[in-house]
Amino acid sequence: MKNLLVFGVGLIGGSLALALKSAQAGWRVTGVGRTGDSLQEALNLGLIDAVSHDIALSASTADVIMIATPVAQIVPILHSIAPYLGSHTVVTDAGSTKADIAAQAHLILGKASARFVPGHPIAGAEKSGPTAAQASLYQGKNVVLTPDAHTDPDAINTIRNLWLSTGAVVREMDAATHDTIFAAVSHLPHLLAFALVDELAARPNAEQFFAFAASGFRDFTRIAGSSPEMWRDISLANRSALLQELDHYQHALSRLRSSLEQKDGENLLALFEKASHARNDWAQQQVNTLRKN
Amino acid sequence: MKNLLVFGVGLIGGSLALALKSAQAGWRVTGVGRTGDSLQEALNLGLIDAVSHDIALSASTADVIMIATPVAQIVPILHSIAPYLGSHTVVTDAGSTKADIAAQAHLILGKASARFVPGHPIAGAEKSGPTAAQASLYQGKNVVLTPDAHTDPDAINTIRNLWLSTGAVVREMDAATHDTIFAAVSHLPHLLAFALVDELAARPNAEQFFAFAASGFRDFTRIAGSSPEMWRDISLANRSALLQELDHYQHALSRLRSSLEQKDGENLLALFEKASHARNDWAQQQVNTLRKN
Repeated sequence: MKNLLVFGVGLIGGSLALALKSAQAGWRVTGVGRTGDSLQEALNLGLIDAVSHDIALSASTADVIMIATPVAQIVPILHSIAPYLGSHTVVTDAGSTKADIAAQAHLILGKASARFVPGHPIAGAEKSGPTAAQASLYQGKNVVLTPDAHTDPDAINTIRNLWLSTGAVVREMDAATHDTIFAAVSHLPHLLAFALVDELAARPNAEQFFAFAASGFRDFTRIAGSSPEMWRDISLANRSALLQELDHYQHALSRLRSSLEQKDGENLLALFEKASHARNDWAQQQVNTLRKN
Repeated sequence: MKNLLVFGVGLIGGSLALALKSAQAGWRVTGVGRTGDSLQEALNLGLIDAVSHDIALSASTADVIMIATPVAQIVPILHSIAPYLGSHTVVTDAGSTKADIAAQAHLILGKASARFVPGHPIAGAEKSGPTAAQASLYQGKNVVLTPDAHTDPDAINTIRNLWLSTGAVVREMDAATHDTIFAAVSHLPHLLAFALVDELAARPNAEQFFAFAASGFRDFTRIAGSSPEMWRDISLANRSALLQELDHYQHALSRLRSSLEQKDGENLLALFEKASHARNDWAQQQVNTLRKN
């Protein structure tokens, strides 16, 4: 049995532990942290095999350390484990932004950063915490790894195999590409939805507006109900890619505004058609992918 | 039995006809139009009692005429019925924009526009056409009427009672207020979603972006899969309110961008918190309303 040490035994870390157990992949999973509530819960739920509050001891005996906490806690955890890493310990994370974390890992871990493999499983869910964990969460889902030229190929293999055991599809790309893609398809939409709801809520007659909001509004703004702290941290961590995507978007919106101002029905139709085809093609591909898995 | 003449026997008009029949509200419903496919389908499905292709005759004998077609067809239909309206015929519509239609109705119907009661049932659905019609579609849903100072109070009562028979909640407001509210909570979100998908789809590496889009993107962009023609028409019909809402939104987005550029985590958190509370309060109210109905 190899030792996997998990920081953050909620939806992401807990589901990984459960998936490994259900695949009988040969991992003994220890949950680690300073406070004990979620850890005890994860132990009671059978997600993990043991609990540790001794970071020094457990980091030095771990084969793999997974940091599956909110992004803001990743850097403090890297600091806390850095002095104790075993000479073969591989470290990985599950944060939604990658370039900033990789840069910090280089500074904090020094030479050992060759065994840091930045990762991002693309599997959110409405719920969080240990009770939300499910063995099948990663089945057919993408997990992106963003190693660089200095990353130890054996370390990459270890993390790739860890994720493959969960049924995930593992993709590799550089951290900057990752951050641009997720700024565009995830972080920007969150900011757009937050901005819309915030702007409406600030109006003196906000209630009247909300009273007539219907199903289109409900779906469009669902992500505006997400954790404010988490999204502040992600926005700041992926700030430069996100600013660039915001600029692209504001230009696109200004072009749309011009077409509307000029009553240019042809341009509006062309834009809506392109978007609608792309959206419906994408949705169809999602359905096909789900069927395959 | 009173005679209801319906233009457009799809989801909106067909569900109205079904709801009136199921409430035994005393209406005989005739579907009218130039082509016969949907009309015949609506007749076969038992949504309507009769089909007519003779607009002159059926308009002159109708107690109420409901125009439940896409917005772009409302004005041509007003033209086609104007010469034949009976002296007590009340006309109403189900379009998503109101000020433009009211203005056109005044021009086209002249004195008879006192018996035109603009309406907007807030009940969309993913599906359309006669087969999508359901008797319960309007149960507990808002229907907005936007009469003005010149509208005949008896005509308003007729249309109010028609909708009350379907289980709808009937609200009155002026057309400009209606158009601003729906620009903000419906039309603007559609434009924002169309713009996002269009901007992504236009990139050379669009496939790579779409490949990593997940559930947040799916919900946020669902409305970008809507009918391009319908949204071109709505955008143009509600152009001035929509331009104003776009301007509000672009300012809000620019403020958010400044906070991000300045790494102002406090401001970002405050904005995300306000939005997230407002969104979750709204969702909770929606659930409570559904439970009541």
